[in-house]
Amino acid sequence: MSELRHNIATGDWVIFSTARARRPHDFAQAKKEIKAIPEHKADCPFCPGNEKMAGTELFRIGDEGSWRVRSVPNRFPALSPDENIARKSDGFYTSMGGFGHHEVIIESPRHNTCIALMNNEEAEDIIRAYVNRYAVLHKIPGIENVTLFKNHGPMAGCSLEHPHSQVVAGPITPPHLRNRIAQAVNYFEMTGTCVYCKMIEKELEADTRVLLDTGKFISFLPFAGILPFTVWIIPRRHLSSFADMEESEIKDLAYILKYTLEKLYYGLSDPDFNLTIRSISALAENAKFFHWYMSIIPRLSEPGGFEMGTAMAINTAMPEASAEFLRRVKCGV
Amino acid sequence: MSELRHNIATGDWVIFSTARARRPHDFAQAKKEIKAIPEHKADCPFCPGNEKMAGTELFRIGDEGSWRVRSVPNRFPALSPDENIARKSDGFYTSMGGFGHHEVIIESPRHNTCIALMNNEEAEDIIRAYVNRYAVLHKIPGIENVTLFKNHGPMAGCSLEHPHSQVVAGPITPPHLRNRIAQAVNYFEMTGTCVYCKMIEKELEADTRVLLDTGKFISFLPFAGILPFTVWIIPRRHLSSFADMEESEIKDLAYILKYTLEKLYYGLSDPDFNLTIRSISALAENAKFFHWYMSIIPRLSEPGGFEMGTAMAINTAMPEASAEFLRRVKCGV
Repeated sequence: MSELRHNIATGDWVIFSTARARRPHDFAQAKKEIKAIPEHKADCPFCPGNEKMAGTELFRIGDEGSWRVRSVPNRFPALSPDENIARKSDGFYTSMGGFGHHEVIIESPRHNTCIALMNNEEAEDIIRAYVNRYAVLHKIPGIENVTLFKNHGPMAGCSLEHPHSQVVAGPITPPHLRNRIAQAVNYFEMTGTCVYCKMIEKELEADTRVLLDTGKFISFLPFAGILPFTVWIIPRRHLSSFADMEESEIKDLAYILKYTLEKLYYGLSDPDFNLTIRSISALAENAKFFHWYMSIIPRLSEPGGFEMGTAMAINTAMPEASAEFLRRVKCGV
Repeated sequence: MSELRHNIATGDWVIFSTARARRPHDFAQAKKEIKAIPEHKADCPFCPGNEKMAGTELFRIGDEGSWRVRSVPNRFPALSPDENIARKSDGFYTSMGGFGHHEVIIESPRHNTCIALMNNEEAEDIIRAYVNRYAVLHKIPGIENVTLFKNHGPMAGCSLEHPHSQVVAGPITPPHLRNRIAQAVNYFEMTGTCVYCKMIEKELEADTRVLLDTGKFISFLPFAGILPFTVWIIPRRHLSSFADMEESEIKDLAYILKYTLEKLYYGLSDPDFNLTIRSISALAENAKFFHWYMSIIPRLSEPGGFEMGTAMAINTAMPEASAEFLRRVKCGV
């Protein structure tokens, strides 16, 4: 059996292939022992005492000697504030300087932790740092888009063990976001409503893919998620920019994020994952048609040539079965 | 130094980050000994003598007992001809049966070879098989798109050692192709010419990214290729469908493909790669605006969260330097 599902927010079709399918618990990996990693490493640039190795501090929560979360420049920046934003073109090929900012958010002084294992206050500090960096970078002239993301584990492209996220602020709206904006505008034109607001309504109604509803946020496995156990976390209130959250929403987001990551941590034995925040670009403020959300995509298999060559995903797990499995996972054990 | 380059055929911007850059020869991997693999494996479903293990033969070049290239069904098909193509929708979520065909093209009776090491006649047989399967599947009612691709090596998603390619024929035009069609239509509307024809002209003029010009095809490293050593092979004659090649072009394509893969094989020590043929979908025949081409993307690094979350690529090698490096590679040594 094979089914194609349309993602109305992205316009893409995803192949759900049960001939290649595995049962949810087949995705659980060999047990990893995160506690075997030391709490402090002498040569880690993100561990306390090594602050000088990490470069100029850009943001901090907590006191200098007892910080809880901090932000520093990426040592191998993809973009740099010194580059020139002016387009150069021969009428066919166009280029510009790689203008922008690339920061690392150090999520904890502890080397051997992750959001799934933190307490609520620790997770809230991370969200506060996210909001601060997003809001500050978003306002810099020439910046059109701020991408906030987290690579957890080597399969997700993470090269440093110490828990951290990254922020890339650049002069271009990336293809994924540009595409979602175009889809959302079309949907708004056709219906007069935000496609994400409608999706939240549909998900709460169906109740087969929802992990948690806090009243302010829902965490759910999208109808046409691209990879097994893809989860979205989205505010129930219509809000196009991540920067415009209220304090009570920051707390709630920290809670639902930790809840979701705990489910994955205990259910699938700490899988590698990519977390991305999709928020409106500087192209529009307070957009009626767009709605920010967070996507969490476990990296349980590698994309092959079909996915690379088509941008069409093959998902081997049905979201309803994965949601059912995660709802039963017992955490903290 | 960091530079953003616009790809006029895809509309995307690629970040070229020299802060993260490596010199071309840094991409060469540890030597792999392909000759250490046996020429025949008793348990390989693609080796001669095991034809029954591979299922019903769909196409063959050569006699039954001494075939040179053959095509069989994929044992774990992503799509199936038995599924129902009718859309089911509640007005928001839409799905359909996973209708389509999924074949494997076995490229050689020899277990331990690859196109880079074959002679011209062997490579020609593979292209003939590609053209046959593309043309046959393309004509099936309900099929909108045929994707022909090859995963070489485990990092490219290849799970079977015996040299093979895959064909997926489905009822949807995949996002990458849909996007390229839209871009190409816009360019045609603005200029009255095919964006790929113009690109060929620009590349031959600049001559800094061209690997080989056979008169019928060019092989070049695109101005804004998404990953290090991305190569495109494209017919100089305007041709929207891969299926419409003439016999002399089939021979020429086999030659330039083998030439290009040899350069990668000897220059980068047999890198894993994804090969994809992008050809017009059944949406249009003899399209003035579209031009088929083959892309070859070595998998020298894994995409991380930034690439996953934005669809914006970070390329750590300049195509001009990579082209210069490949032009100097001595093959067959």
